[in-house]
Amino acid sequence: MKHIDIEITAESGLELLTNDEIARLSEHSKDGDHELFKKCVLAVLNSTQVTDEISYHKEQLKNFDVDVVPLNKGVKLKIKNAPTTALVDGFMIQGLKEQVFSVLRDIVFLKQELESNSRIDFNSSNGCTNAIFHILRNAKALRSGTDPNMVVCWGGHAIPEFEYQYTKEVGYRLGLRGFDIITGCGIGAMKGPMKGALIGHSKQRINNARYVGITEPGIIAAESPNPIVNELIVMPDIEKRLEAFVRLGHGFVVFPGGVGTAEEILYILGILLHPDNADTPFPLIFTGPKESAAYFEHIDRFIGDTLGQKAQSKYQIIIDDPVSVARAIQKGIAEVRQYRKEVHDAYHFNWQLEILWDFQEEFIPTHENMSKLNLSADQPLHLLAANLRKAFSGIVSGNVKEQGIQEVSKHGPYQITGDTHIMDQLDALLESFVTQKRMKLNAENYVPCYRVNSASMASKTS
Amino acid sequence: MKHIDIEITAESGLELLTNDEIARLSEHSKDGDHELFKKCVLAVLNSTQVTDEISYHKEQLKNFDVDVVPLNKGVKLKIKNAPTTALVDGFMIQGLKEQVFSVLRDIVFLKQELESNSRIDFNSSNGCTNAIFHILRNAKALRSGTDPNMVVCWGGHAIPEFEYQYTKEVGYRLGLRGFDIITGCGIGAMKGPMKGALIGHSKQRINNARYVGITEPGIIAAESPNPIVNELIVMPDIEKRLEAFVRLGHGFVVFPGGVGTAEEILYILGILLHPDNADTPFPLIFTGPKESAAYFEHIDRFIGDTLGQKAQSKYQIIIDDPVSVARAIQKGIAEVRQYRKEVHDAYHFNWQLEILWDFQEEFIPTHENMSKLNLSADQPLHLLAANLRKAFSGIVSGNVKEQGIQEVSKHGPYQITGDTHIMDQLDALLESFVTQKRMKLNAENYVPCYRVNSASMASKTS
Amino acid sequence: MKHIDIEITAESGLELLTNDEIARLSEHSKDGDHELFKKCVLAVLNSTQVTDEISYHKEQLKNFDVDVVPLNKGVKLKIKNAPTTALVDGFMIQGLKEQVFSVLRDIVFLKQELESNSRIDFNSSNGCTNAIFHILRNAKALRSGTDPNMVVCWGGHAIPEFEYQYTKEVGYRLGLRGFDIITGCGIGAMKGPMKGALIGHSKQRINNARYVGITEPGIIAAESPNPIVNELIVMPDIEKRLEAFVRLGHGFVVFPGGVGTAEEILYILGILLHPDNADTPFPLIFTGPKESAAYFEHIDRFIGDTLGQKAQSKYQIIIDDPVSVARAIQKGIAEVRQYRKEVHDAYHFNWQLEILWDFQEEFIPTHENMSKLNLSADQPLHLLAANLRKAFSGIVSGNVKEQGIQEVSKHGPYQITGDTHIMDQLDALLESFVTQKRMKLNAENYVPCYRVNSASMASKTS
Amino acid sequence: MKHIDIEITAESGLELLTNDEIARLSEHSKDGDHELFKKCVLAVLNSTQVTDEISYHKEQLKNFDVDVVPLNKGVKLKIKNAPTTALVDGFMIQGLKEQVFSVLRDIVFLKQELESNSRIDFNSSNGCTNAIFHILRNAKALRSGTDPNMVVCWGGHAIPEFEYQYTKEVGYRLGLRGFDIITGCGIGAMKGPMKGALIGHSKQRINNARYVGITEPGIIAAESPNPIVNELIVMPDIEKRLEAFVRLGHGFVVFPGGVGTAEEILYILGILLHPDNADTPFPLIFTGPKESAAYFEHIDRFIGDTLGQKAQSKYQIIIDDPVSVARAIQKGIAEVRQYRKEVHDAYHFNWQLEILWDFQEEFIPTHENMSKLNLSADQPLHLLAANLRKAFSGIVSGNVKEQGIQEVSKHGPYQITGDTHIMDQLDALLESFVTQKRMKLNAENYVPCYRVNSASMASKTS
Repeated sequence: MKHIDIEITAESGLELLTNDEIARLSEHSKDGDHELFKKCVLAVLNSTQVTDEISYHKEQLKNFDVDVVPLNKGVKLKIKNAPTTALVDGFMIQGLKEQVFSVLRDIVFLKQELESNSRIDFNSSNGCTNAIFHILRNAKALRSGTDPNMVVCWGGHAIPEFEYQYTKEVGYRLGLRGFDIITGCGIGAMKGPMKGALIGHSKQRINNARYVGITEPGIIAAESPNPIVNELIVMPDIEKRLEAFVRLGHGFVVFPGGVGTAEEILYILGILLHPDNADTPFPLIFTGPKESAAYFEHIDRFIGDTLGQKAQSKYQIIIDDPVSVARAIQKGIAEVRQYRKEVHDAYHFNWQLEILWDFQEEFIPTHENMSKLNLSADQPLHLLAANLRKAFSGIVSGNVKEQGIQEVSKHGPYQITGDTHIMDQLDALLESFVTQKRMKLNAENYVPCYRVNSASMASKTS
Repeated sequence: MKHIDIEITAESGLELLTNDEIARLSEHSKDGDHELFKKCVLAVLNSTQVTDEISYHKEQLKNFDVDVVPLNKGVKLKIKNAPTTALVDGFMIQGLKEQVFSVLRDIVFLKQELESNSRIDFNSSNGCTNAIFHILRNAKALRSGTDPNMVVCWGGHAIPEFEYQYTKEVGYRLGLRGFDIITGCGIGAMKGPMKGALIGHSKQRINNARYVGITEPGIIAAESPNPIVNELIVMPDIEKRLEAFVRLGHGFVVFPGGVGTAEEILYILGILLHPDNADTPFPLIFTGPKESAAYFEHIDRFIGDTLGQKAQSKYQIIIDDPVSVARAIQKGIAEVRQYRKEVHDAYHFNWQLEILWDFQEEFIPTHENMSKLNLSADQPLHLLAANLRKAFSGIVSGNVKEQGIQEVSKHGPYQITGDTHIMDQLDALLESFVTQKRMKLNAENYVPCYRVNSASMASKTS
Repeated sequence: MKHIDIEITAESGLELLTNDEIARLSEHSKDGDHELFKKCVLAVLNSTQVTDEISYHKEQLKNFDVDVVPLNKGVKLKIKNAPTTALVDGFMIQGLKEQVFSVLRDIVFLKQELESNSRIDFNSSNGCTNAIFHILRNAKALRSGTDPNMVVCWGGHAIPEFEYQYTKEVGYRLGLRGFDIITGCGIGAMKGPMKGALIGHSKQRINNARYVGITEPGIIAAESPNPIVNELIVMPDIEKRLEAFVRLGHGFVVFPGGVGTAEEILYILGILLHPDNADTPFPLIFTGPKESAAYFEHIDRFIGDTLGQKAQSKYQIIIDDPVSVARAIQKGIAEVRQYRKEVHDAYHFNWQLEILWDFQEEFIPTHENMSKLNLSADQPLHLLAANLRKAFSGIVSGNVKEQGIQEVSKHGPYQITGDTHIMDQLDALLESFVTQKRMKLNAENYVPCYRVNSASMASKTS
Repeated sequence: MKHIDIEITAESGLELLTNDEIARLSEHSKDGDHELFKKCVLAVLNSTQVTDEISYHKEQLKNFDVDVVPLNKGVKLKIKNAPTTALVDGFMIQGLKEQVFSVLRDIVFLKQELESNSRIDFNSSNGCTNAIFHILRNAKALRSGTDPNMVVCWGGHAIPEFEYQYTKEVGYRLGLRGFDIITGCGIGAMKGPMKGALIGHSKQRINNARYVGITEPGIIAAESPNPIVNELIVMPDIEKRLEAFVRLGHGFVVFPGGVGTAEEILYILGILLHPDNADTPFPLIFTGPKESAAYFEHIDRFIGDTLGQKAQSKYQIIIDDPVSVARAIQKGIAEVRQYRKEVHDAYHFNWQLEILWDFQEEFIPTHENMSKLNLSADQPLHLLAANLRKAFSGIVSGNVKEQGIQEVSKHGPYQITGDTHIMDQLDALLESFVTQKRMKLNAENYVPCYRVNSASMASKTS
């Protein structure tokens, strides 16, 4: 791969900065967050590449650099050793240029702006929701006066080809019906729905469709946003990212995935089970091709056995029928519109939804935190869901995140303890993931990073 | 496949008709051209289908019907037994709806409007060019005040996958550079460049790109326009269609194909060899993947041996290098722009190009017409090219068009006679097409529909 | 006044012409219609001038000239001795440039295009209506898909200041309610409503409002279109112009004027009295400041006495109350919308309205034609109205049109003969116009160009 | 005048607020700034009224009220006893509605937002400039990527009709050349240029022109913004308002006025005389009809005698020639563009201009502050100009501002002391204002609110 030096000037709302803002931006991009910023920009520029090899990326990083140059009339980025695939005849591809400045906006500019604002904080539930609103508004992702039409698609990153094709087909059917798409902005189930929708929109002559990618710094650097994404938003961490999905979207489709997808499912069920949200319409569809029916069977059984029928009533499972998925979403979103109209809620942000601090605070999966999780049936369902969500989050980390892997190699597998009944179900579900090879990419012989103990056992062993 | 009855109201400029125009339209669509109109509409509605089976299409036609219903405020189409694949939840897909009304506009409305205009005729060279301009203007395909950026892509309909992928790649590189695409609007080399360009445009955030498909009634009915086409134009016959390409386009790319592609190549070389066109810049690139290099080698040798170096100087062959193709087109179109500016010619229509009546008149490949073709070296090069073009046109007909096939089965192969030297080259080229299996789709044992005779032999046999 | 030579290139849809069209245009502008074209262009260019002196205009005409220069890419106008007031720093004011090309379009281009079209003629009632539609469509004055909102304002050219202020005030109230304005495009009651509406639109932040001026060649040359007009349309004669108003408009306001305004009133009443139009909603308001109440009293009395209560029921008189006028129009147009929706008529053109050939044929006011007018009560009301319309039309001509004035000076006043009762009313009305000084501009001692005879007298004198 | 209760929902960027922002907005509008907010809203709603009687306004205020009602999806204003002239058929005129929300944005919302931002302050020179940028950006008044074309027009509020007509004529010539207009947004020389430009823009078919009004709370409440203003901005005080003009505008025209206009002139001369601004192009034209030539003669003489030729070289005086004014501005702005391009300064904000804290700090004209002004020649010219500016500012206050009038009635006239030479000139200039009746509206016998003492006299009397 060849590399080249290039300069680009500001887009994405960064054209209008005060001299002070520019100075702070330039400074800030030089210290603390410089490494993070660099990684993210390189991730964006690599997005036309097919490769996924992180080591290659690391090699590139050594020679790669980005400098924020203050101008009187805005900012300029000086990029050293940009991959030439990001350019056409010496000019950066417009879509990539916009994504690069979205990264600058969210990671560097916004961060320090939020810091200077005494009224914004991430330390309370209300503050957190407000901050998310600020970030989305600053990214111009909120559009007042538009009817609800945003569909969030969740699902696995590394999925087999037939599942990928299925996500494309569902996206196509959504696009034909005029829906915009929001995903986590990587490949797999995050790319398929966008690609399908692109074709559907094109056939319907919709040429201002939105393909929103919401990511987080930790992931964007390792995983390039796909280039269809025409609105890139970087949220600080997974909890804020999940809330952004939930407040911004109007309909939700979940495709098969691994433990991460299970985390997303538990997250949203935990919220929907909160008594205050009992009557809020929230279209939630689990879907996959018929070959993947088993995945949702296991999930559904696990939910039924741990959270009960009430939780199961919150979603609908549709197997191998993209048209029905699109129609169910259409019907659901019509109800969302009707409801928000009645309660005078905004279409552009779901203020009504009650989200507890438990779902917003960053969960750090240390061994201690994991072992202290309360997984007993003796608590409100939405809190049990919240704790199960954390358990899955920890396993994701132990499987694929640098920090988690280190912890596990040092202290052995996480100990997860809870009511026997719940633990049995959890064990079975995780086992099914192992069998379906959904635990880890290319893991022939998966060694679990966790151990599931029933509470009685736990008390005995202690 | 399921079918359904549906009504749609006018688009594509047919919203504003006088009552008389509507009445004539409705009447006219009922007689003479009703069958043709029906076939074309069905072709459009089938375009989301994968099938290419004509027999199936014929079966469908029996139950299918379209009625033009006059309204005070425009026209409505009543469609009986439309394939349900053309609809989404009871509404016709917007792109198809526009294409259906483009067909109505060009086949029914325009035809009778042209008839009523005493100043438009297809019976002279000048009249022909003017009529083409009228059709394009009426279709809003001419845009004044826009820089030249239209690239015509020619090539085979039924090509192997690796050639199709190559046409997509070239289209992608053209799209990244902001070029619009014109093709014959079917599949193969007519779809690939559009599909590639769609992605290129999307990455560059170009959302008003043009994908122009120029077809003719005989072909649209058999071959559905691909749904990316957002401007569909129906020209009366192949000669007018070729002229429309040449007057509308600014750059030209030829991919591998069969005898039809050879016809297109001879057509354009014949025009460029006319002395009046000697200095007109006209970017013309022949290109294909490396596996297809032989195709253009044979073509190039044939041209060199029959029309000489001057003809060879009119094009550039680029093998297996999409980026270079796009750059060559970019450079060539910049010269076109410069030239038209200097001579004060329009950007939207190539008035300068001299096109003789020989290239405009419809050639009907009867055995008599074929045998009378003057294929001797003893004539200006551009006329020899014109006659060779007709020879290829006849072979296309004998291979795949209903009328030609019938003729050949009745009277035996066409007799093509000319100078020994030229006939040898022709024979060799055709032979190479047979060997490369480019003569006919799925033809294991191709039986030639022609016999090539050198002039001396011919005189002997007679 | 200073003059300068200038060249301008095409606008208003003339950018896209075939070489033949350009050639014909250039030729045609040189013969037959050259003088007319010249006069009209000069009228447009003079429109920023305050003067109204025709003699000055004639003086200018001697040195003034316009040439249509054919280009490969459109047309260029070479203007000799253009008044410098039409330019800003060497460039023609955009609004004037557009109006100049509207004149070229309607007077030169369209005329010969219509001639070449065997399906368009002005010699039948239906043909006439179709031709008007063609002219309006070609001028892009028809907009499908837009709700009815066009208000036609009729009234005097040379009116006192307080009447002018009143027309502005009504225009302002219409503009505040989002209505577009159509007038005859000169000064007085034709300018006031546009000027008022401009301010109303500006306050409502409507920046795409339409100010349509419909004129005829005879009048545009003598009377410059006001520069607010952003769509200028030139109809062939007064009858076609009146029909264009009536088919295009949705609401109608009549301000005080002279005999010309009386002609307009009789024209529309004649149409509305036709039995086929009995149920067609047609908002028609007569209005003026309180000082002008007498004008409409006389008109109303005349209508009551000659055409009866049925005719009087077709309009509403509102004195000195601009807000009520605007509200009445608003209410009326809502009914028009409702009605057209029910009968599936277009919003952009009133096809439903029956207009007899009597109202469409050009009436030439010779002494013979005037004396033969049937003004007896013994005929359907709508025909009596048609004939009264012609009587007024003749008087307008005898008062101010060159041809009419010559006729009268040669043969003495027109003889108008009819039933005693009707003639008495006519005499009284005309007398009131004389008293109110509405007969002629600056005419201290008006000498009538007509004599009114009752039928019995007429038979005696003959 | 009639009044009515009405509710309106948010515009001007206030559609997208967090719940917290809405709550603070609603609260804040209830305390501290409620009275101010009320006054300003009433001023806007009265702007279609002709009256200028403050007492009437005060009477209205008693019954008038505005409530900010928080909604989940934005804000709503409940207005009690709005003048009915602000409504059309029950709906508020769009232009007024936008202005009302501009007031809410700048006075209530922005104020408390700025307070919460630790990086914005008005207590340093740099902070002040940054804050002004923030306010303008928040009002969307900064447009990147647009060529310089904003012309600031200064001049008297209460001017004779012939001067008003002249300002209209200049505005018309600026509008014909495509310039946007910025004024103080009241009547007189602040309305005339906008009204003239509106017509010029309309003739040039420019339909997105900007009419920016920059006001301050103290003045908007007493003086309604004219309704042509389509961007209303409220700056905190006169110093910030003057800086906003100077940073936002590209060309400057000064019409005749009174002491206030003299204040503006001294302000800008003081800035331009700063050594750092010596080479910054800054088109500054003083202009008026020939009847007003004396005004600028006196001003020019005063400047020459006190600040010298260098100051005189900063402006150009053009008498009775609107076209020349427009051309001079055009030429000057071309130089501004060229210069900013060269030094890479923004087009949308004049960052380059050095403005000292002396020109930014609020000057409160107490007797002490006025008497302590340093008006000796023994200081840099730009500081002398700054102090003279303050002297004029004080006289404006003593003449027409409530606070100043009270002070003067309590303590007698302000004592202004300085070098004899300068004091003589000042006395002569003020005397000429008295003679020309420019001191105060409707003041037959003006009693000066100041006494001018030469420094020597001053020392004697003390």
